[in-house]
Amino acid sequence: MSNLTTMKLNVDSLLLQALKEDITSEDITTNAIMRESRIGQVQLLCKQDGVLAGLDVFRRVFELLDETTKMDEFFKDGDAVKNGDLIAVITADIRAVLSGERTALNYLQHMSGIATHTKSISGLLEGTKIKLLDTRKTTPNMRIFEKYSVKVGGGYNHRFNLSDGILIKDNHIDAAGGVKEAIALAKEYAPFVRKIEVEVENLDMLNDALEAGADIIMLDNMDIKTMKEAVGIINGRAEIECSGNVTKERVSQIADVGVDYISCGAITHSSPILDFSLKNLKVL
Amino acid sequence: MSNLTTMKLNVDSLLLQALKEDITSEDITTNAIMRESRIGQVQLLCKQDGVLAGLDVFRRVFELLDETTKMDEFFKDGDAVKNGDLIAVITADIRAVLSGERTALNYLQHMSGIATHTKSISGLLEGTKIKLLDTRKTTPNMRIFEKYSVKVGGGYNHRFNLSDGILIKDNHIDAAGGVKEAIALAKEYAPFVRKIEVEVENLDMLNDALEAGADIIMLDNMDIKTMKEAVGIINGRAEIECSGNVTKERVSQIADVGVDYISCGAITHSSPILDFSLKNLKVL
Amino acid sequence: MSNLTTMKLNVDSLLLQALKEDITSEDITTNAIMRESRIGQVQLLCKQDGVLAGLDVFRRVFELLDETTKMDEFFKDGDAVKNGDLIAVITADIRAVLSGERTALNYLQHMSGIATHTKSISGLLEGTKIKLLDTRKTTPNMRIFEKYSVKVGGGYNHRFNLSDGILIKDNHIDAAGGVKEAIALAKEYAPFVRKIEVEVENLDMLNDALEAGADIIMLDNMDIKTMKEAVGIINGRAEIECSGNVTKERVSQIADVGVDYISCGAITHSSPILDFSLKNLKVL
Amino acid sequence: MSNLTTMKLNVDSLLLQALKEDITSEDITTNAIMRESRIGQVQLLCKQDGVLAGLDVFRRVFELLDETTKMDEFFKDGDAVKNGDLIAVITADIRAVLSGERTALNYLQHMSGIATHTKSISGLLEGTKIKLLDTRKTTPNMRIFEKYSVKVGGGYNHRFNLSDGILIKDNHIDAAGGVKEAIALAKEYAPFVRKIEVEVENLDMLNDALEAGADIIMLDNMDIKTMKEAVGIINGRAEIECSGNVTKERVSQIADVGVDYISCGAITHSSPILDFSLKNLKVL
Amino acid sequence: MSNLTTMKLNVDSLLLQALKEDITSEDITTNAIMRESRIGQVQLLCKQDGVLAGLDVFRRVFELLDETTKMDEFFKDGDAVKNGDLIAVITADIRAVLSGERTALNYLQHMSGIATHTKSISGLLEGTKIKLLDTRKTTPNMRIFEKYSVKVGGGYNHRFNLSDGILIKDNHIDAAGGVKEAIALAKEYAPFVRKIEVEVENLDMLNDALEAGADIIMLDNMDIKTMKEAVGIINGRAEIECSGNVTKERVSQIADVGVDYISCGAITHSSPILDFSLKNLKVL
Amino acid sequence: MSNLTTMKLNVDSLLLQALKEDITSEDITTNAIMRESRIGQVQLLCKQDGVLAGLDVFRRVFELLDETTKMDEFFKDGDAVKNGDLIAVITADIRAVLSGERTALNYLQHMSGIATHTKSISGLLEGTKIKLLDTRKTTPNMRIFEKYSVKVGGGYNHRFNLSDGILIKDNHIDAAGGVKEAIALAKEYAPFVRKIEVEVENLDMLNDALEAGADIIMLDNMDIKTMKEAVGIINGRAEIECSGNVTKERVSQIADVGVDYISCGAITHSSPILDFSLKNLKVL
Repeated sequence: MSNLTTMKLNVDSLLLQALKEDITSEDITTNAIMRESRIGQVQLLCKQDGVLAGLDVFRRVFELLDETTKMDEFFKDGDAVKNGDLIAVITADIRAVLSGERTALNYLQHMSGIATHTKSISGLLEGTKIKLLDTRKTTPNMRIFEKYSVKVGGGYNHRFNLSDGILIKDNHIDAAGGVKEAIALAKEYAPFVRKIEVEVENLDMLNDALEAGADIIMLDNMDIKTMKEAVGIINGRAEIECSGNVTKERVSQIADVGVDYISCGAITHSSPILDFSLKNLKVL
Repeated sequence: MSNLTTMKLNVDSLLLQALKEDITSEDITTNAIMRESRIGQVQLLCKQDGVLAGLDVFRRVFELLDETTKMDEFFKDGDAVKNGDLIAVITADIRAVLSGERTALNYLQHMSGIATHTKSISGLLEGTKIKLLDTRKTTPNMRIFEKYSVKVGGGYNHRFNLSDGILIKDNHIDAAGGVKEAIALAKEYAPFVRKIEVEVENLDMLNDALEAGADIIMLDNMDIKTMKEAVGIINGRAEIECSGNVTKERVSQIADVGVDYISCGAITHSSPILDFSLKNLKVL
Repeated sequence: MSNLTTMKLNVDSLLLQALKEDITSEDITTNAIMRESRIGQVQLLCKQDGVLAGLDVFRRVFELLDETTKMDEFFKDGDAVKNGDLIAVITADIRAVLSGERTALNYLQHMSGIATHTKSISGLLEGTKIKLLDTRKTTPNMRIFEKYSVKVGGGYNHRFNLSDGILIKDNHIDAAGGVKEAIALAKEYAPFVRKIEVEVENLDMLNDALEAGADIIMLDNMDIKTMKEAVGIINGRAEIECSGNVTKERVSQIADVGVDYISCGAITHSSPILDFSLKNLKVL
Repeated sequence: MSNLTTMKLNVDSLLLQALKEDITSEDITTNAIMRESRIGQVQLLCKQDGVLAGLDVFRRVFELLDETTKMDEFFKDGDAVKNGDLIAVITADIRAVLSGERTALNYLQHMSGIATHTKSISGLLEGTKIKLLDTRKTTPNMRIFEKYSVKVGGGYNHRFNLSDGILIKDNHIDAAGGVKEAIALAKEYAPFVRKIEVEVENLDMLNDALEAGADIIMLDNMDIKTMKEAVGIINGRAEIECSGNVTKERVSQIADVGVDYISCGAITHSSPILDFSLKNLKVL
Repeated sequence: MSNLTTMKLNVDSLLLQALKEDITSEDITTNAIMRESRIGQVQLLCKQDGVLAGLDVFRRVFELLDETTKMDEFFKDGDAVKNGDLIAVITADIRAVLSGERTALNYLQHMSGIATHTKSISGLLEGTKIKLLDTRKTTPNMRIFEKYSVKVGGGYNHRFNLSDGILIKDNHIDAAGGVKEAIALAKEYAPFVRKIEVEVENLDMLNDALEAGADIIMLDNMDIKTMKEAVGIINGRAEIECSGNVTKERVSQIADVGVDYISCGAITHSSPILDFSLKNLKVL
Repeated sequence: MSNLTTMKLNVDSLLLQALKEDITSEDITTNAIMRESRIGQVQLLCKQDGVLAGLDVFRRVFELLDETTKMDEFFKDGDAVKNGDLIAVITADIRAVLSGERTALNYLQHMSGIATHTKSISGLLEGTKIKLLDTRKTTPNMRIFEKYSVKVGGGYNHRFNLSDGILIKDNHIDAAGGVKEAIALAKEYAPFVRKIEVEVENLDMLNDALEAGADIIMLDNMDIKTMKEAVGIINGRAEIECSGNVTKERVSQIADVGVDYISCGAITHSSPILDFSLKNLKVL
């Protein structure tokens, strides 16, 4: 997210929108207390062990309010951080600091929470060749931040949205009249750079999908035994993703089955935050 | 959130933005599979016990894509729902259903997750006169949905944002040169319909705040004994909020202290979702 | 309005919109006459006695067109200015000066007009403890500028909008079935940092409002005698606002009655402008 | 303004913006008091004699909140209205009525105020062939409403903005090196459907402007005698506008001079509102 | 483009923007001539032989101005049309017809021009298994319309934009330090549903790309002989696209070489329009 | 287009929109290959003979992504350029160069294509006093770029849009009940700075238009003989525009007829691009 192009085209407008959600006319407390511009310094402290994600976004919030903002950073995205760590020191107009504090922290805490949660699962897959994938089960208008945080936590991104990936599910198959028909329609319609992924629930559907030339098979909520059988049938003819409840035990079982990817919605929709705070503000 | 004015002025634009986040050009899978408009029906099923919140928002997502959408609803916001419950049946253009499904569920699951989490805490306060409050620790660009879900779960809303409430914290006090000075500046500056709330960390600050005429005192991270002392000192001269880690034990202890409000950030920033899904689509 | 946070989040977009209202494709006169960029200087002159308001907004218009704009300012918001006074000297790209001139003056003249009008009334209240309040009777999409100008002119702001203050009026009372019922509904619903204000037209309504615990009472269009009676009944149990036609004579009469606030719509909706002009442009 | 194309392309977005200025999250008073949708009826009453303008805009505000809004109208734009007149009856969701009331009235009052003010001047010109013109001295982001109101009040519109008309003023002349040079540059640059207007302060400038082929001459702040001389020199070779302080006496003097147009800034920037109110709400 | 979801999320805002480009305040000619709403009928006539594309977009422009618009359509997208054909009859508010005419025709003519141009090339490939692809060389803010028109004309879409497809070009290869390094970086970074495409200029680069596991090879500006050699080397290990000047002769030569795709920028960036007009308006 | 005011108010938002059309989340290829910011240099080369237009727009695209962008320019808008010419050297963050390349080139190629096409026609009119005009037949959301390019190519701009010029066509005349009625309505309604233009198809309509006081007559699709007759009838009483198929032969015939303007839609709607490319990127 350190890429200025991404920031300017696809992040800044969201940050400004979040700031306006929090300041619809003016920050009355700050403006009452500090009637003139003064430069100050404040510390960003970590209050919980985890993985840091979103430091660029955090800094950008203050830059959008005061372009002279400086930030000395002692950690970077992906680093393990501990309760009590001094993450960074911000120097800026005190009014920008006070008015932007909550929004900046809301992003940082949410993103680091996701990275921390993701790491706890991706760590279980270390040593295997299986990759942990996210899903489209993200918080509305937060996807770009959440997909980034998954990567910081050692996960990988599935498609970004409905426009940039084909994934044929049960409803699509019903509508098309069968697995083969659906794949044929998709191959004809989709931009040619796309792989075709199909979600299958049993081995019959699997065979149809393979025959029709699916690039990726998603094994949906299968038990371990059926998954093994499916992997054997696929036999290298397609990449394999499996989805379903990702728990510690299940992950270690799946690790032996031979799939390429495990996808998990919880890392984006149900991660608790990682706690940070701004402390020790001083006027310079 | 059933209020159409709120929906049209402050919700629709966020829903459309979320839909565009998920569909930047077109939904290639749906458009490949279903080349013509056809009306279909699909069931909204609950997959986890909890409190329902966001059903109007869920329906609105589909209405924005297909204004002829109909939805038969068997539960309403605030109802307890159980794994397996049929919540509603949606009848609409199948392409609108397939393209809007994920966005609609992402809202419903997030909002119901917050209502469920809130209820689990607000339930502990039943029988007392203490109210559970939310905070500004919300997910960026989700505040209007999250504050609403807190109310559905039996909580109450603190200020909506920095423009509609005064809350003087430690940094403001430092900048102003003391509690009394800060309150005086705030009283002079703030629109007269505002109450002045001050966060205090000890009894000296408390005395200053009372003397300067604070309307609300927030006792920040105090132990039970100090809180009791503070309540005695205040003696009805101000409303009392206490903040800090809200756990079951702590809540029952606080219940006897005599505060008016307990505020809790976790209900908006760290609630896991409540699971729902769309199933059994059929073409009409 | 010198606060950069407010400017960036809630003012700049309105200024740009106003500039685009005046320049939908290009300023054809300026672009015809000045084909290259040249730095120039121009004087901002006052052409009518009054109170200055909006100098930051005036400068910001030019900064948005040419970020190298400099402005030497000889007066500041709130100052009394006289016909002929040199208020400021602007140095900028001449094309930015010519293209932004009308928009910048339209803001400055409107804002200073409001400050001047407000001062003429707030001055009558000097020496009393009564504060002059504005209303929501503002020019659409100009509220942030008008509420600020009221403060510059010695007035105070009532609520900013319908989302940040409770004011129960006759229609609300009818709908709720009575004053007490309305206040109870409002207390239950409103964020807890809000004071509850009720508009009453007679002493019966007043008694109900007091009993139900209103924080502020607005005496609507009462004669002086009834107002005095009302003040006696209230007897310190609520803050008191009175509204209605604000004329010189009426203000001095009200001053003795014992109300806390007088509100006035005319200062925002019917103030004539204060005249300024840009003169003596020279090329540097 | 009854034209739906204009409304949809260039008015609705401004009305929605004004509604959002007044409702940043929700209308807490209305939503507290009326928890369900109910249809009601309310009267629009005139409280001051004048000229009606903006009835379509007034109705549109409510339609944007409740598309089933009906309005029975007893007067139309341009009609003379009197204190006490029943202008219209609105039938709509009561919450839409209460939440939109202030915004709708703010437009109607402002627009009718301008029409009334304009009429008081344009009436003085009746019987002459002189037309009253507005200027670009309008309230920011209100121009489309104000220019329309001028027409309702019997005035005519000068150019809408800097992109659709050429008006060469003193500063442009200095920059170009003279009247003739400026006109030549403008003729070369401007889209060919434009007339070229030049502001002149004395007879020398007038002669240059005529020689260079100006289509319209604006006589800026000239005394009556000089104006007469100017009209004689022009002798039908260009249309003639005069600007400057428009007072009753001056208007009658100018009427004899032979100019074609008188322009006046005050009708858009300094008109007091015309008072209206919503009364007698009843639930249906 | 008949998909309402695509229309509402990604097309309507562009159509409204184009209408506002053409009507910044009001359509002064239409509003002068037709002061009241009247329903009328007008014919859409084809004035040049070609392929029709964009009829839904054409109709949508009028629907956005008048939602009661009806259109009887005698042809559909993809049909061959001839000079003189009556394509459709529109029934709507005459003012919507007159104000929307140019914008609606500008889209229809541009889109049909692209479909016609595309068809003239895709027709040459009939009977082969080679598909004609478009590129990102589209007119800014017209991509969704242009990519759709290519499909109507018998072409296929390459990636929609930089976010939904990987295409490694010479500059990327230099930056990464070689073909293999670039592919490795891309495989690690890209969402897993993406195919990796690499542009190669010679056979060495080709061998590196194949070894590194590219999914698609783009042969850039190669002569026929080298292309044949390349196809032999690839030998089914990757899909093959060739780019470069697409002329009739070259297309027939390439047809024998064995590539899968030919991409062509000219169909989107240099197609002349196909001429249509609105005629025979009558008032109903 | 070198005017910063025009750029900031009316161009930047279109450029950003085009960039977002091409980058909806991030540029995955560039971000995969270049993980850190590095400054680089790249050459803008011309690949086809023609007229340069849009160099400021081209540079602005990169500035919007990286404000430190520098560009050494060896040609300027309006210059004749040849295949192989080095037009400019850009120095900027390599990621901004790679991500902005296609959008910047799409604008430059389109604009230069129009300038080149326009020049080929305006050149035929050199030595005559006839001016070549554009029309409103422009590519949607590209008008400001296309009208500018026409001027660079030696053409002149007709009205910019429906709000800033009166042009009465056959449909308007039918609706109004005749040429004279239409002109009368337009004169009454239109802002006074507008000239009234009328499209006539025969000499009867011409006589009516002249009698009613049209400022400009457009001779629509007349043969040379009728045009000559028309010019004789007009005899200096109005400016004369002729429209219709502009071919080399027709242009030279028209040159002798005595019209003032020839308008041509093809220069904006059917110009092929002029080819440019970015080459020889090197890391600094």
